[in-house]
Amino acid sequence: MRIAEGLRDLLPEELAFLEEKERSALSLFQAWSYRKVLTTGLEYGECVEPEMTRKGDLYKFFDREGQVLALRPEFTTPIARLVSSRLLPRALDGSMPFRLCYSGDVYRYGSGRYREFRQIGVELIGAAAELADAEVIALSIEMLLCLGLRDFRVSLGHIGVFADLADELVLEEALRKKLEVGLARKDVVGMNSLLASCVLPEKAKELVGLLPSLTGGAEVLERLRAFECFESVRRAAASLRAVYGFLEAFGVQEHVSIDLGILRGFAYYSGTIFEGYIPDVGFPILEGGRYDGLLEGFGQSAPATGFACNLETLLALGGQKPMPKPDAFVYGDSPEKVIRRCQSLRRAGKQVEMAVGPVDASSLLAADYCHDFEFVEPS
Amino acid sequence: MRIAEGLRDLLPEELAFLEEKERSALSLFQAWSYRKVLTTGLEYGECVEPEMTRKGDLYKFFDREGQVLALRPEFTTPIARLVSSRLLPRALDGSMPFRLCYSGDVYRYGSGRYREFRQIGVELIGAAAELADAEVIALSIEMLLCLGLRDFRVSLGHIGVFADLADELVLEEALRKKLEVGLARKDVVGMNSLLASCVLPEKAKELVGLLPSLTGGAEVLERLRAFECFESVRRAAASLRAVYGFLEAFGVQEHVSIDLGILRGFAYYSGTIFEGYIPDVGFPILEGGRYDGLLEGFGQSAPATGFACNLETLLALGGQKPMPKPDAFVYGDSPEKVIRRCQSLRRAGKQVEMAVGPVDASSLLAADYCHDFEFVEPS
Repeated sequence: MRIAEGLRDLLPEELAFLEEKERSALSLFQAWSYRKVLTTGLEYGECVEPEMTRKGDLYKFFDREGQVLALRPEFTTPIARLVSSRLLPRALDGSMPFRLCYSGDVYRYGSGRYREFRQIGVELIGAAAELADAEVIALSIEMLLCLGLRDFRVSLGHIGVFADLADELVLEEALRKKLEVGLARKDVVGMNSLLASCVLPEKAKELVGLLPSLTGGAEVLERLRAFECFESVRRAAASLRAVYGFLEAFGVQEHVSIDLGILRGFAYYSGTIFEGYIPDVGFPILEGGRYDGLLEGFGQSAPATGFACNLETLLALGGQKPMPKPDAFVYGDSPEKVIRRCQSLRRAGKQVEMAVGPVDASSLLAADYCHDFEFVEPS
Repeated sequence: MRIAEGLRDLLPEELAFLEEKERSALSLFQAWSYRKVLTTGLEYGECVEPEMTRKGDLYKFFDREGQVLALRPEFTTPIARLVSSRLLPRALDGSMPFRLCYSGDVYRYGSGRYREFRQIGVELIGAAAELADAEVIALSIEMLLCLGLRDFRVSLGHIGVFADLADELVLEEALRKKLEVGLARKDVVGMNSLLASCVLPEKAKELVGLLPSLTGGAEVLERLRAFECFESVRRAAASLRAVYGFLEAFGVQEHVSIDLGILRGFAYYSGTIFEGYIPDVGFPILEGGRYDGLLEGFGQSAPATGFACNLETLLALGGQKPMPKPDAFVYGDSPEKVIRRCQSLRRAGKQVEMAVGPVDASSLLAADYCHDFEFVEPS
């Protein structure tokens, strides 16, 4: 009798590892003035990310009142609900953005190994400027460094380069979907054959065909200049140039690569998007981006940006933190004397384990169980 | 569009309060050598406490594989499963007990205001002695002190005084239930009329009728001597005397009162039981006791004792922790310079908020928003 597929128990060494990573990320967030919130674990069905509902990734059920509840699959939508319904209406000075962070377990069927995992992240709500995007991206990079990662890469893209361009060109839905699939797979041959047979401005065909290869540093953004006849591209390029410039000022650009072929992510993304990758892991350890349209659905609208990091990934790579040994193990023939000795050591700040049954002192010694073994004389 | 009945979001001040209490309790547990574990949030229907299933308190649903899952309603049963299935089988030295602790949100429909609340607690598994019960009770009292409570009371009882006695007397089920109801309500008149009309040894009638008034200090245990002709009472009294004596050695007896009328609690309790109460709150803030039969159902049996504390109670009493103000709020006309100044302050250990939009410095000053406002000159 164990637990269901994709769920997990964490033993002391695993939990201590996860919580150490969590604590260091959360104190970084606090140093950047983000405040931790917690949203309910059970959301109304209509308050969760629509893409996950569509894919059937949600743990959903009817509650006693007959309403559909879903186990929280991510935090951004719930935090948008919280800010829109409780924080924005009573904000005294509408000009100040909200900086919020979170950490908690989320639930998704998905296709991965885990259906229950720890997510940590930030949301910067009420700021439309590229400086806000840059702050959040720079913070995500500092967080990865803080988690002890070195060999990682954050890919930076913009929803405008393909999605908004497709809108601007009034691309028919079937073609759009096919191009999205080709782009996600970086299938240049397939995309070119699709593009060859469709009616689109030559410039647009050229740009879409180029997208899979538009990856790298600031020079990638220069290559977009030739396509700024499209309003969507002009706006995306201007945005990305500003963000990238700010990331240089933050001193984190060495970890960033522009990738104009990035498509994936949640339905709510509306501008700059980014993904963080670590070696030998086939899915992003972090995902983020701008979502200016999300809050509106909950009452009060506001521009916003943020990211989420999947901490479970680090645990799955074998993370464990050894448990500290107790300072003292106290045993003896008089329980009252043992109790009093333990209490006195604890008052002195020691971590103490008290014998509550027969003690095999030699095997404890052999196992190097404690820093100190103390036998209390009956006197 | 908000959240469902009984669920809750926690704003920064509320969450910071809850987490501060949680942290101080967890570090106390660690000082007593308890190690934190986390069990999955979704248990198989057969791995949850049967009394809650019976009362319909569980959030239950079918998962994708068609199995019944329940949102974790408490931690003791899951930890018993974890220890029995993963820790006991590979324990090298069977003589050492496991000391585990936990903190997490649990879900129950129940009758209270909250259906989602934070529970924190410990389990001491593998120790049958009264010294183990006393350790756990003393730790629960030190925890309440550590949470900042002073005016609380821990009631100590034993399942043997009524439940085991009823078994010993082979009490018929209907009478037993009625007496339990009377005992829970301390309805002496009702109980006496029930007892008058039933066929039981006079000594048993006398004892059951006395139970509601058997509350107080060590003298209560002396009054049990007259009833030790019953094996169940003799064993319970001996156990309680040993536990109470140890609690005196721990120096916590001033917070303990014996209450032989305690009945409630989970179906798995099998020996010493206890409940903690604070003023003006009609339900226990903590509940605990011995549960020697619980692990067996999961494969490996072991004696065990522990307690759970409902931290949400403290939050419901209005607990909030003011947020620390950032050390500095940095703004200016050159974003790059502002960024570099922020990064340099953060490297120096400061909590810094960066302006990411237009700044109304006078209203920030008026609101006393930060310890320091820093305008970065464009130079």
